[in-house]
Amino acid sequence: MEVAQVLHMNGGVGDASYANNSFVQQKVLCLTKPIREEAITSLYCNTLPRSLGIADLGCSSGPNTLFVVSECIKTVEKLCQQLNHKSPEYKVFLNDLPGNDFNNIFKSLDSFKEKLYHEMESRVGPCYFSGVPGSFYGRVFPNRSLHFVHSSYSLQWLSKVPEGVDNNKGNIYISSTSPSNVVRAYYEQFQTDFSHFLKCRAEELVEGGRMVLTILGRRSDDPSSKDGCYIWELMAKALNDMVLEGIIKEEQLDTFNIPQYTPSPSEVKLEVLKEGSFALSRLEVSEVNWNWNSIDDWNSTLDFEFDRSDESLGNGGYNVAQCMRAVAEPMLISHFGEAIIEEVFSRYQKILNDRISKEKTEFINVTVLLTRKA
Amino acid sequence: MEVAQVLHMNGGVGDASYANNSFVQQKVLCLTKPIREEAITSLYCNTLPRSLGIADLGCSSGPNTLFVVSECIKTVEKLCQQLNHKSPEYKVFLNDLPGNDFNNIFKSLDSFKEKLYHEMESRVGPCYFSGVPGSFYGRVFPNRSLHFVHSSYSLQWLSKVPEGVDNNKGNIYISSTSPSNVVRAYYEQFQTDFSHFLKCRAEELVEGGRMVLTILGRRSDDPSSKDGCYIWELMAKALNDMVLEGIIKEEQLDTFNIPQYTPSPSEVKLEVLKEGSFALSRLEVSEVNWNWNSIDDWNSTLDFEFDRSDESLGNGGYNVAQCMRAVAEPMLISHFGEAIIEEVFSRYQKILNDRISKEKTEFINVTVLLTRKA
Repeated sequence: MEVAQVLHMNGGVGDASYANNSFVQQKVLCLTKPIREEAITSLYCNTLPRSLGIADLGCSSGPNTLFVVSECIKTVEKLCQQLNHKSPEYKVFLNDLPGNDFNNIFKSLDSFKEKLYHEMESRVGPCYFSGVPGSFYGRVFPNRSLHFVHSSYSLQWLSKVPEGVDNNKGNIYISSTSPSNVVRAYYEQFQTDFSHFLKCRAEELVEGGRMVLTILGRRSDDPSSKDGCYIWELMAKALNDMVLEGIIKEEQLDTFNIPQYTPSPSEVKLEVLKEGSFALSRLEVSEVNWNWNSIDDWNSTLDFEFDRSDESLGNGGYNVAQCMRAVAEPMLISHFGEAIIEEVFSRYQKILNDRISKEKTEFINVTVLLTRKA
Repeated sequence: MEVAQVLHMNGGVGDASYANNSFVQQKVLCLTKPIREEAITSLYCNTLPRSLGIADLGCSSGPNTLFVVSECIKTVEKLCQQLNHKSPEYKVFLNDLPGNDFNNIFKSLDSFKEKLYHEMESRVGPCYFSGVPGSFYGRVFPNRSLHFVHSSYSLQWLSKVPEGVDNNKGNIYISSTSPSNVVRAYYEQFQTDFSHFLKCRAEELVEGGRMVLTILGRRSDDPSSKDGCYIWELMAKALNDMVLEGIIKEEQLDTFNIPQYTPSPSEVKLEVLKEGSFALSRLEVSEVNWNWNSIDDWNSTLDFEFDRSDESLGNGGYNVAQCMRAVAEPMLISHFGEAIIEEVFSRYQKILNDRISKEKTEFINVTVLLTRKA
């Protein structure tokens, strides 16, 4: 199994103890809600589909999994009511890698549908759900079967660790000390993967179909700038400290690299223009602060219900460490073994807390709204 | 959760220790292969679809799950080669109740596809797989989205235990001693369920679409005849013996009923004609002997690979008991508790061995090929 697969898969394992992971994703989904509403509204009004194919790519398995689907359906239903149209039927495709916990999603579908029908006072078209396993870096759906594609916080994962990054010693991702060939290799892998992603989706979407993609990225044009790399640099710091203390072997760390790329807005834009199947209707950048010390502003803007008894709320370092643990742990275990894990994340949390208290730290999100050209 | 759901679900749990369950199903799939080939051939030649929707209802999760899908695709590909047609794309929908182990199926898909491409020397149209959770006694797929529907050994399960069978004391299914109202209640539940099944599928299939359904049934017109009930009567005997010995309470047994109906060929035919959406193109009856004491005749007709080291082969009572355990255990546990299970199946196996040695005992299968009318 490729490293990327181990890593990406874990997004779907749905380990409840890592539920904080969903906080960042929830915040991102909140921030990008207006773009999705714009996408769905223009899609519906321009194509008036009687049968609407909606796909969520990298759906994972947890509290966020069905949020966007629910929101899309509600948006369409409101339009139908305003325009006095009959509801369309909804074909909902939930995609993730084959290791995702689809069983867990499927068991929650009945209560999801019940809640949706209740909230919409039963004014909802028929909804057909299916789980579609497979990497979105290949074809996943039949030709022209989709109207709306959504993906959030998945496309920063590359299909594999780029080749030719052997000299990225002491680092686990691009960092300010990475040699230029490493930075280039990562960027080229992103270009290959993202361009292939666009080609595949172009065949799967109908003409006029919309895509809203949110990618963990950066603002700066420099791939080794802090805003895209810092979170991994701090994890590398924890690992390097353990190398110094002899807990981890140096060559082990030197051969460990994260299959991720945090693109800039212009890098995303360039690939869209080069590939050519999609019109770039919108491009936005947003951020999520690592230190969410209040949930009140979230609840005011979101439909999500948070567990207010969760004592971890307001503990930035703990939250970010848990969030990163959810994605990085399987990869760390497969490379370093299980024994060092607690120690890594204990050190990582301390480093994060220190940074959060001293500087502004945030995740940068690049969101695009793409329209399939005729 | 309904009893039927507990029971039906278990078909999907895929517990390796009950792998014998798949033997009966494999034998049935072998016997019904010619009907599927006829169905697929006439479907393809009459409709020439460029995109072929195939659904397996009650797909379970085990060695049989993808067998029929593989066979269908191979049949179509052979036709395409003979007729010099371009391969269609295949949309494969695997359906079972939400409790089925879809994760297990999804993890096996990559190697399944690899094997298929290898066997067909890569001359296969693109295949898109999805898992579709939900009861087939309701709508599961969008309008006119399917060309071929298959279901084997699932439709004998009712959506629930019929109402009004309180006086079926000492029995767990219809038996020769069941009061007439019990027999009627079971038959009426079958009529309601099967008719609703046909209505739902009629909306989901395209005109000219085909369905091949194999149902565990009986030859006799009498619902309480031995050929449809004996397998449960013998389990009831084991349970009644335990009541006599005070291990199970009498009222516990009296309130336990299996949500199943083993229809006769004419009962199946009648519902198809009454519902009216389908032409009955073929109706066949076949049987599987409880006592398979040789696997040689199987291997000669089938592509399946049996594990010849399995010591249980040739032990009829053990095989049938394990086979029934796979479907009945969750239901027995939920009604009687876990403590009695080993004892029930130990007694059941002895009773089965005794019967197998003294009389001809077999499962009866009713298979229909239905064509969606214009």
